[in-house]
This record gives sequence, structure tokens and C-alpha cells, in this order.
Amino acid sequence: MAVVLGPNRYGKAETRVVRVTRDGDVHHVKDCNVSIALSGAMTDVHLTGDNAAVLPTDSQKNTVYAMARRHGIGEIEDFALLLARHFTGSQPAIHHARVEIEEYSWNRIPDGPPHSFVRAGGEVRTCVAHHDRDGTASVVSGLKDLVVLNSTGSEFHGFAQDEYTTLKPATDRVLATAVTAAWRHTAVPPRGGPGEPYAESYAVSYAEVRRHLLEAFARTHSLSLQQTLYTMGRQVLEARPEICEIRLALPNKHHFAVDLSPFGLDNDNEVFYAADRPYGLIEGHVLDDDAPDAGRAWE
Amino acid sequence: MAVVLGPNRYGKAETRVVRVTRDGDVHHVKDCNVSIALSGAMTDVHLTGDNAAVLPTDSQKNTVYAMARRHGIGEIEDFALLLARHFTGSQPAIHHARVEIEEYSWNRIPDGPPHSFVRAGGEVRTCVAHHDRDGTASVVSGLKDLVVLNSTGSEFHGFAQDEYTTLKPATDRVLATAVTAAWRHTAVPPRGGPGEPYAESYAVSYAEVRRHLLEAFARTHSLSLQQTLYTMGRQVLEARPEICEIRLALPNKHHFAVDLSPFGLDNDNEVFYAADRPYGLIEGHVLDDDAPDAGRAWE
Amino acid sequence: MAVVLGPNRYGKAETRVVRVTRDGDVHHVKDCNVSIALSGAMTDVHLTGDNAAVLPTDSQKNTVYAMARRHGIGEIEDFALLLARHFTGSQPAIHHARVEIEEYSWNRIPDGPPHSFVRAGGEVRTCVAHHDRDGTASVVSGLKDLVVLNSTGSEFHGFAQDEYTTLKPATDRVLATAVTAAWRHTAVPPRGGPGEPYAESYAVSYAEVRRHLLEAFARTHSLSLQQTLYTMGRQVLEARPEICEIRLALPNKHHFAVDLSPFGLDNDNEVFYAADRPYGLIEGHVLDDDAPDAGRAWE
Amino acid sequence: MAVVLGPNRYGKAETRVVRVTRDGDVHHVKDCNVSIALSGAMTDVHLTGDNAAVLPTDSQKNTVYAMARRHGIGEIEDFALLLARHFTGSQPAIHHARVEIEEYSWNRIPDGPPHSFVRAGGEVRTCVAHHDRDGTASVVSGLKDLVVLNSTGSEFHGFAQDEYTTLKPATDRVLATAVTAAWRHTAVPPRGGPGEPYAESYAVSYAEVRRHLLEAFARTHSLSLQQTLYTMGRQVLEARPEICEIRLALPNKHHFAVDLSPFGLDNDNEVFYAADRPYGLIEGHVLDDDAPDAGRAWE
Repeated sequence: MAVVLGPNRYGKAETRVVRVTRDGDVHHVKDCNVSIALSGAMTDVHLTGDNAAVLPTDSQKNTVYAMARRHGIGEIEDFALLLARHFTGSQPAIHHARVEIEEYSWNRIPDGPPHSFVRAGGEVRTCVAHHDRDGTASVVSGLKDLVVLNSTGSEFHGFAQDEYTTLKPATDRVLATAVTAAWRHTAVPPRGGPGEPYAESYAVSYAEVRRHLLEAFARTHSLSLQQTLYTMGRQVLEARPEICEIRLALPNKHHFAVDLSPFGLDNDNEVFYAADRPYGLIEGHVLDDDAPDAGRAWE
Repeated sequence: MAVVLGPNRYGKAETRVVRVTRDGDVHHVKDCNVSIALSGAMTDVHLTGDNAAVLPTDSQKNTVYAMARRHGIGEIEDFALLLARHFTGSQPAIHHARVEIEEYSWNRIPDGPPHSFVRAGGEVRTCVAHHDRDGTASVVSGLKDLVVLNSTGSEFHGFAQDEYTTLKPATDRVLATAVTAAWRHTAVPPRGGPGEPYAESYAVSYAEVRRHLLEAFARTHSLSLQQTLYTMGRQVLEARPEICEIRLALPNKHHFAVDLSPFGLDNDNEVFYAADRPYGLIEGHVLDDDAPDAGRAWE
Repeated sequence: MAVVLGPNRYGKAETRVVRVTRDGDVHHVKDCNVSIALSGAMTDVHLTGDNAAVLPTDSQKNTVYAMARRHGIGEIEDFALLLARHFTGSQPAIHHARVEIEEYSWNRIPDGPPHSFVRAGGEVRTCVAHHDRDGTASVVSGLKDLVVLNSTGSEFHGFAQDEYTTLKPATDRVLATAVTAAWRHTAVPPRGGPGEPYAESYAVSYAEVRRHLLEAFARTHSLSLQQTLYTMGRQVLEARPEICEIRLALPNKHHFAVDLSPFGLDNDNEVFYAADRPYGLIEGHVLDDDAPDAGRAWE
Repeated sequence: MAVVLGPNRYGKAETRVVRVTRDGDVHHVKDCNVSIALSGAMTDVHLTGDNAAVLPTDSQKNTVYAMARRHGIGEIEDFALLLARHFTGSQPAIHHARVEIEEYSWNRIPDGPPHSFVRAGGEVRTCVAHHDRDGTASVVSGLKDLVVLNSTGSEFHGFAQDEYTTLKPATDRVLATAVTAAWRHTAVPPRGGPGEPYAESYAVSYAEVRRHLLEAFARTHSLSLQQTLYTMGRQVLEARPEICEIRLALPNKHHFAVDLSPFGLDNDNEVFYAADRPYGLIEGHVLDDDAPDAGRAWE
């Protein structure tokens, strides 16, 4: 036996950057949280504390701000790739960079001046970009905290039963979840599928994937949350040629119809207790069977 | 010296209730968090553990669900009053009820069936209703987590200075805050001001106050966050005759322009670091000098 | 009707300060979160944006650090008073200062060098000090997040019943709560009760109050959480002459014995579901009937 | 191209169970949060909503409670394995089970009766157990939220520099982190290393690993947090033959010495600003080069 160092990475996490761009009096705001993780020739720093290969995380933070100044922050995928390429291209000891960005969206205040904004709430847009010094790159886009609910159109019955099963079959229930989803782009820069160029931006791709997720959730008459998950994933893959894989995590946010019979009242799915814990958690991947190797895209 | 019992109250906090109402295939959802606090002849339970006067908090929870079934949940202020009246009217030992409700809003999923919803995010609507067994009542409506930002139109200079002051005057800065606001209705049921009837619902009142808060924040050229706070409050009071007092708490969510000069870059208010802590906190009340006595409305 | 400015205050919230003191190789750590709220001649800044009376919150932050350097941070009550006196004594426009401090405690790492620490977890120590420019002062000490549980020795029966009551009486239940408590010192500097000097520090007072709260919770055979609350408060007041009032907020963190009868198993209070929401919330004040007027101590 | 279902799992997450065991008047408390994830023949439920293979997550919750009643909750690793074996052994469609448990620790209240407890705070103990229906099993133990600080004995200099580097070298700084660690047991049931039986319980193993982590953090004169990480991992592996791999995630919780020179004060590492974000994040694996294949242990 010998003790050895395994995979490792380091970087500055959660650098909060807000970028204002002016178009005359009209301002635009990008509000992001950037997390960088670098890896490479880092054995010495672990074994002896020799920092010669270590670009300080403070420098990484400065780079985020400087790059935001130089290039603006367009789509977060592009900005993540820009940063990842910068580190692998400029630091010999850095062989691989992972950049994760969360974006918080803002709306204009109605009838306000064009520099006034109200935070949109709702889901957070996300991305993870990887870049090797040999030029290999990947982009996973995503979202989290997209909370949705169908007040009918959901059933759950015909399930396996064991000695600990007391659940009654349901032919009409509330189905609610907070969608966390991440989808892998087939190519970087994005392409429209095997052999096809793809000219749209990550912004269009994001908006369309989000729309398909919502639509599939809403339109699926659900026999189980697993079925809904798969339908959501399949619809995205079928509609969006630039995407080859999607991963979904759907907590089943239980809404229990309250038993009001002790009070002489019926409850035909009108009054629900929204429970915090425990919750079901359904996770699944849906992918194109021709999808290229993912490499480190999901790390 | 003698040890005595002072003010006290008890109740069920954070009962999560979701109420679905059906209009044919079109469903409506109300999603609330209800907290009840009752007080009255509670000396014995504290001194001897005699529970004869204590309506269990479990019964209070049941009441929330039963009332939601019987009456629906319309505007949260109305539902809070309904509950508060119920407890003071039905339990001799309960002399006073306080009901606080948070409401989370949902939007319909675009192009989805009329039973599919996506949580709106953004601010939470709130209310606190008080009711005595003699019929005295009060209603305070409010909101929290309304996050707003002006990317220009804010200054801060001419301030007091002491030996610990290093802040530079600013003639152009980002002003951002998360609005917590609560406003007291002059009368229950609401009236339009001294001597005037008021026919609108709490829903209209809420939407209008929110609109005025946003508009005043956006349109005020700010010399300090205190000035913005007062302007927001004043605009609400001047525009809404049913409101006699508003209380605002505005954290100054600092956005610091990053010094990029070490990198040979200027930064003309384009790149900001959004700080978590510490933050300024500005709190103030704005009221009508004719406002009736608040009683326990703010407790 | 005229719109007027009501009570207001402003200041820097949540300045995180860690103070290291060295006694040779032996280091001591104080880890605090300081929130300052100042009030006084602040009409102009609200009405016109004239900041002449406004000491920037940035200067307040600097003062926290400079004072921590000059004087160290001893007991948080003393440090809070030091800061509050500084602001009311040095700024003519500041008539009143409120300083709130949270303290996070650290233990030494066993067998480690005397500069190595592990955060203690558990409760947070708190205080709120007020100081007027005329010299009036008050100190409220406290704690929060002190989570306690009795696995027997708790009953709840003989309660009021109404049409919505389904709760069964309990002669043996788990009683669990997260104690939030705040207690007012009779005098500043602290005294031992009417006419008596008090020589102990806030540290001793805190440790003793905490001990009494735990002991009273543990030793009370409880017929209701209200009774436990009152007993906790009374024991503190009877044992600690420097305290004239205590306020307690006790969430009843429900532990429901799980019904295992469908599986042919009894459950004699052995297996519990620890629920998140809803929860009972019991709040009460216990005080000395000779307590001096509280002034603004509880604001 | 064809859309296919990839890896998937489902189960009940965050079942909160508190188990009381009585030894006469002396009570013992185990307080856990159990998350189950099952996988197997789940294609049909995803593609068609046929639930025949799906044991409801509600039944899984019931199983947690029933097993806690039948067998008690001893060490969380044993309880996790018990549950995982149950599901793979009793449900033909379940080919693999993953059970994750968090444990919150409680201390007895000093001088209280033997049924009175105060929650310990500090770190949370964790474990993840995997079990296949063919009998393959793995156990990863761990902890999170173990917050530690060295007020001296840490340096950082000799690092790489680029055009965005402004950080000054440090020969004395505060080093603070919140340890998240997970370590893989070489065998299930645990053994003492290659060829050696191991008779100790998971409780002893946990206590010793925790002790070594603290000791290594405290005693390492640190030239970088990477060096500290590796030393922590190596010490655990060298001291504990039952462990073959450890993974550590260490946020560098920056404590910046405040510049007090504008106030005529020096600051010889006495007064620090404890920052929230951004923070460095150092992650690394340390392992025995003879470690058996991890299989799905880390999923």
C-alpha cells in the first residue's frame, strides 16, 4: 500500500458579478455567479506546499471582472467558455478548466426609466463549460428552481406492493415539482445535429428548451412522475437538434388532500397540505443513442 | 419582587395550504402559509399546566383547512380576518387573534391546459390581521423579497464625516434593495379615506400599492436611500386613500464598482461586485398625520 | 391629511468581525456579527436627500473594526455598549444607537496547538444594547437555536375542544423545541438587584442563565409547553438578581409517534417522525413586577 | 438518432426519523435523515407509465420507520445497509439500492434527568451505502459542516502570477474552512486492511477519522490549503487500515486582515473581516494505490 493523490481541482467559487451595458439611456443588466475549478500539474502543491503551479484564486476572481469589462457578458455559456479557454491557454500548469455560472434574471420596471429593474424570481439559469488545453470543450446548459404544478391530469396506481405498502391508488392527484435540468450540447460551438450547422445562440436554445420542458410537463397526462420526466426529456431531444442528452431531477413535492370527513366535509381535491419532507425524488437521463462521448462534460 | 407572567400568545405557525378552485376545466390555485397566534385567559396554563383554556394548535390547523374548504381562500386579508373572527367568536378564553398569511403566486403555463401552473417567483405577498372579541380589527398588508435595482440615477455625497470615514462621495452609483413593506388599512372593512366608502378589493389595493412602490423607486433620482424610502411611502399614501401608514425596510444591497486600474482598464460603472454582507439597512415609517390609533395592528 | 415621516433608523447590518488576541502562543478568538442602527435628526435626509446628518454606514463598519483593534472584543454586551456610546457621543445628529451582536463560539481542537479551533455549533449568543445621548442605556442578552428534547416527562390533555378538534390526549410525548430567549438586565452597568451591587461579568450571567434554562426545561414534568416556558422564565428570574425580564419563543417541534399497526408492530414512543411544518409556537414574557420601565430596550 | 432512457433512480428522500431506546430510565436518541434511491427494471414506467415495477416511495418511508422499530438504529452505516439489503432482497425489479443517511448528534443536558437532551450542533455525520441484488455492497462514511480555523501557522506565497494577479504573498494568515469529507471502507463488513480482520464498529472508525482530520488540520504548518488537504487525507489513510480512499472538499473561508492604517492603527493579524463570497474551493481525493475498485460507491 502507498498513499497517493487522486483527482483534484481548485478555484474561486461564487464570484458575484453584475455587468451593466449602456445603449444610450437604455441599460442592460447581466447578474451572474461564477465558479471556477482548475486542474493540472498540481502534485507538488499537495505534497510539499510548493505553489509554483498555483494561480491564486484571487487572480481568477480578478479575471472574471476584467473579462466582464473587456468582452461584456453575453450568453453565460459563451462567457464560461471564454474564461475556461483563458486559463487553459495562459497557464502552462492548468490542463483543464471547469467554469460554472448561475444567472439571475431581471425585468424592466413597467413605465420606469430604462435603467430600472425588478428581479424576475422563478428559475435560475445555469451552465457548466469544460475546456482542455488541447482544445476539447463541452457545454452543459440548464436551469433549477423551476416550480410547476398540475392540479389535475395526474394518476398513480398499479404499483408494486409489499408488506409496508399502505398507499391508496390515485386516479386524480396534484403533481408538483421543482425542475432541475441540465442538457448537453452535441458540439462546441453548437451545431444543429449530425452534419448540420446551427446558427442560433445559446439564448434561443435556452428559451426553447425551457418552453419544451414546461409544455411537456403541462400536456402530459401523467401516470407517474417517471413518465413525465421521460416525456420532458424526449420532447427536448426531439425538438432541439443541438442537444444530445438531458438529465432531470424532479422532487415529487407532495400535496396531500386533507381528510375533512371528521368535520362533515368532503374534499374533492380542493384543499391540500403542501408537505416539506419527505419527498419523492425522481432522477433520470434521456439521451440520443448517437450522442458523442460525454468526456468530462458532467463533472 | 414577585415573578409575574407578562404578555403571551400561542398558536399554529406555518400551516401550508393550497386551495384549488374549479371553474369547469379552468382551475385556480391559492398557495398560502398561515400562522395563527391566540391570546386571552392563559394564566392557568402557564402557572399550573391546566389546559382548559387551550384550544390545541392542531385544532387551529384543522380550522385552516376546513375554512379553506367551506369558504375558499379569496384575498388573504379576507381569509385572515375570517379565521381571526372565528377564534375570537367561538372560544371564550380567546380574547384576541392574530393571523399572518404569506401568499406565493403562480402563473399559468403558456399554451398549457388550464390546470397547469408555474410558480411566479419574485416577491411574496403578506398580511397580518388582528381581531378582538369586542369586534376591533385591523389589517396590515405587505410584501417582501421585491428586489429592485437602478443602474444609474443614484448619488450619495455631502454626508457627515468622522475619523473613521473613508468613503468617497458618489455622483453615480447602482442602487439596489430588497423591499420589505407593510401598510396599514385605515379601516376594516377598507374605506376610501375619511368619510368615504371604498369599494375595491384587497387585490386591487395590493396591485396598486405594489405598482406605486415600484414606480417611486424607479422614478426617484436618489440622493440617499432614505430619500427613496420616504418617496416610496409618500407616493403610496398620497395615491391610496385606504392606506394610513406604511413601514419600509430597505437593505442597501451594495454593488461596488470593481477597481480594474491594475489591469489597465477603466470601469465607468460597468462591472460591479454584488456584496452579501455587510449591508446598509434603512428603516422608516411614513404615515398620515390623521391616521387612527394603530392599536395592536403592528404586533 | 398630511403625509409625515414617522420613526426611522439606519445603519450597517451584519458586519462580520473576527478578533484574535494573543497571549504568547495561546490565541483567543471572538467571532461576531455586528448590526448597528442609528436614529436622530434624520428628517432632512428623508425629505430632501440632504445627507449632512448621515454618518455613512461604511464609517460605522470601519468603526467596528477600529474599536475591535483598540479595545478588543470582550463580552459582546460591553462591546455593543462601547459602540453605541461612541456613536451617540461623537455625532451630534445621532440621538440614539442600537447595537445588536451575534456571537459564534469556538472550542480548541483537542491536543492541537493553542491557535487551532473548531466551531462549537449549537446555540448563538446574542445581545442588543441601546444608548441615548443623555446617557440612558439598556442591555438585553440572549440566545437562539438552543435545541432541546425530552423523550418523556411531557403530557398534553384536558384541553379545550371544538368542532375541529381531533387531537387525542397524550400522557407521554416527546417535547422538543429550539429556544429563542432574551433577557433584560435591570441596570447598566449590571447590578445584583434592588440596592445591591453586582460584580460579575456578562459572561458569568450568560452561562448561568443558559444553565438555568436548560435545567428548567429538563426538570419540568410538563403538562404543556406554556408551563415549561413559564417555569424556565421564573427560574431565571428567581436565580439571577441582575435580570428583571425574560422573553421566550418556543416552537413546538412536533415529534409524532408513527402508527406502525398496519405492519403488526406496536410503537410505545420509540419511533417518531420529526415534522418541519406546521409547528406550534409558544411565546411569553416573564418579569419581575418591580422591573424598571423597559424604555426602548426591546426595540 | 433515437431517443433512449439512460441511468435513472427514484426513491423517498429526507425521511426524518427519531428513534428513542430505553434502558430503564436512561433514554438514548438517534436522530436521522434517510434518503433512499432505487434502480432496476424501470424502463416501462418511464416509457408508458406502467407502475408494476415501482414500489411507492411511500412504502419506502414506511419501511424506514418499521425497520427502526424492529432493529433500532445503531450505527447509520449498519442501518443504511439493512435498508439497502431489504429493498434489493425483497423486490425483484429493484436491482440496486442507495441509502444515504445524515445523523444529528445530541448530548445529555448536564445534571438533567436521563431523558433530556440538547442538540450538539457542529458537524453532521453522513454515510452512503450501496447494495446490489448480487450481494455487492459498499459503504462511504463522512461528515460535513466541521468548521475549523487556525489563527496562525498558515502561509501562501511563491504562487504563479499573471497579468491579473494583485495578491500579495502572505507569511502569516488565518486559515479557516468547513470540512466536507467522505471516506470509503475497503470492505463490507469492514476489515482492517489487506488480509486482516477488523473488529471495531463504524462508531469507532468515525470517531478516529474525525480525530485524525482535526489533528492533521491543527498540526500542519500550512503553505497552501491543498497541502493541508492532502495531509489530512494521508493521515487518515495511514492511521486507519479499514479506509482505502478519502475525498475532501475544503472551502477557503477567507479572513481578510482589515486595513486600519487610515485610522492610524496597525493590524498585526488581530482584526479580520470574515467574507461570505467568493471563496476558494479546494477539492481532492487521497487513496491507497491498492484500493479495490470503487464500483458505484461514490454515486
